[in-house]
Amino acid sequence: MQVGMIGLGKMGGYMIERLLKDGHKTVGFDLNKQAVDDLVKIKSEGAHSLQELVDKLESPRAIWIMVPAGVPVEQTILHLIPLLQKGDVIIDGGNSYFKDSIRRYEMLKEKEISFLDCGTSGGIWGLKNGYCVMVGGDKEAFDKCESIFKTLAPDKGYKYTGASGSGHYVKMVHNGIEYGMMQSYAEGFQIMKVSNYDLDLAGIADLWGHSSVVRSWLLELLADALNKEHDLHSIKGYVPDSGEGRWTIQEAIDKNVPAPVITLSLMMRLVSRQDESFSAKVLAALRNEFGGHEVKKE
Amino acid sequence: MQVGMIGLGKMGGYMIERLLKDGHKTVGFDLNKQAVDDLVKIKSEGAHSLQELVDKLESPRAIWIMVPAGVPVEQTILHLIPLLQKGDVIIDGGNSYFKDSIRRYEMLKEKEISFLDCGTSGGIWGLKNGYCVMVGGDKEAFDKCESIFKTLAPDKGYKYTGASGSGHYVKMVHNGIEYGMMQSYAEGFQIMKVSNYDLDLAGIADLWGHSSVVRSWLLELLADALNKEHDLHSIKGYVPDSGEGRWTIQEAIDKNVPAPVITLSLMMRLVSRQDESFSAKVLAALRNEFGGHEVKKE
Repeated sequence: MQVGMIGLGKMGGYMIERLLKDGHKTVGFDLNKQAVDDLVKIKSEGAHSLQELVDKLESPRAIWIMVPAGVPVEQTILHLIPLLQKGDVIIDGGNSYFKDSIRRYEMLKEKEISFLDCGTSGGIWGLKNGYCVMVGGDKEAFDKCESIFKTLAPDKGYKYTGASGSGHYVKMVHNGIEYGMMQSYAEGFQIMKVSNYDLDLAGIADLWGHSSVVRSWLLELLADALNKEHDLHSIKGYVPDSGEGRWTIQEAIDKNVPAPVITLSLMMRLVSRQDESFSAKVLAALRNEFGGHEVKKE
Repeated sequence: MQVGMIGLGKMGGYMIERLLKDGHKTVGFDLNKQAVDDLVKIKSEGAHSLQELVDKLESPRAIWIMVPAGVPVEQTILHLIPLLQKGDVIIDGGNSYFKDSIRRYEMLKEKEISFLDCGTSGGIWGLKNGYCVMVGGDKEAFDKCESIFKTLAPDKGYKYTGASGSGHYVKMVHNGIEYGMMQSYAEGFQIMKVSNYDLDLAGIADLWGHSSVVRSWLLELLADALNKEHDLHSIKGYVPDSGEGRWTIQEAIDKNVPAPVITLSLMMRLVSRQDESFSAKVLAALRNEFGGHEVKKE
């Protein structure tokens, strides 16, 4: 199949590699001219404008957007609309908010352009392992593009999840779960680090990969990280987030579902970013006020 | 090697099967006479008393205890002491509290009996997959018994973790991490269950097993459970705990290490066991007191 790829970062670039290997024809575009020039070297066509990308694809077109969520996705779609024709399909493979995806689906439906929201998991390992792909939108559009998903995913690694927004919804919850799993490992390994025993944390992470109940791919990655650097001394304990945890929590609140551990896992990331905590100042001040307990001075 | 196994429940019984397959000689004992009679059918020797078990093993003996943590382990060891000789080794393969294991190690050391604390993960799947084994105690005792651990574990699935107590310590933290991971999946799947989409939860759990970032063995088990029963309707949402989560949290407090997600995961299990929550009554009463907000009547 012919696929236009917008966004040639690690994810988009690796996806093109998987698509080419499986016999698809690809045309790639990126705002970074160099990325397009590099792409041409691996036998993909490149385009230096959205117009050129659209012109190089036969109708009906499948255009995969792999750019950061928010304004970049919105701008890309708005720029594409006047260039596309009835029957073309836009696939957003990034981590967009599912409500934005529903809105974009409706907006594009009016132009008779199909829109699929595609949650894509696997990170930089997707080139090798394949991407886990969850797709929402009209079933006919999914069917039309199925060969793309089949190529990007490993065996049994893609699924039509239902109506518009459901692909990004499922991916959002996936990432919320990821927050909690990561925080659990993080707490456990910190406890073992300060224990009275001189524990081989990298060795334990490796060991648990062999038939323990907590074995997982995240644990394998943790073992890799600890094997590179046993105390992670070059990595600052500062943890960003890119939205999906927040949206999972917002959805839990909207649906009156308790999700305390996912919520707390985001909060612990916020704590990690504070150089100084005003709430800790408040606690210290109050202990001093009621009990005369000493405070540390700035 | 010769191994005496005390406790022929699922764990102990399956371990004997693995040991026999790999050419070890085993003698099994259980308070349940039937379990001993059944054992003999699979070509293991059986014993109807601890004395008989000890008599059937050549010195130096290796005796594996696979009985519930707490009083059963303590009683078993106290009964064994007068029957054993210098150089014998007792291995506690259960989920004992690591401080109990250190105390038992010291108590047995005075009798010149070795004691290994062995954390064993893998549950009822250990017969097929092997058990992940973490062993604390004297290195010489570990070396003496290494062929047992090698048989019980899969390739690379056992490890000497260090001084007495460290095997059970590492297993304790392992289980604490398990609490948090389980709670994360549980929250995420509950959000998906009440979403506006009609999501195929079993299919999503299956899907995520294929190259997603949250793939894990626990997720595979969840997929199995959801495939058996899509809404888990026959299972009550009541979750016991068997101590290791509590001890992990106690250790975190003792070492001044924040472990909020593991702690909250235990608390959510406690919530699951309350038919009625007095704290919820207090909240409802207070809203009524200050704001006149309506309360539901019992």
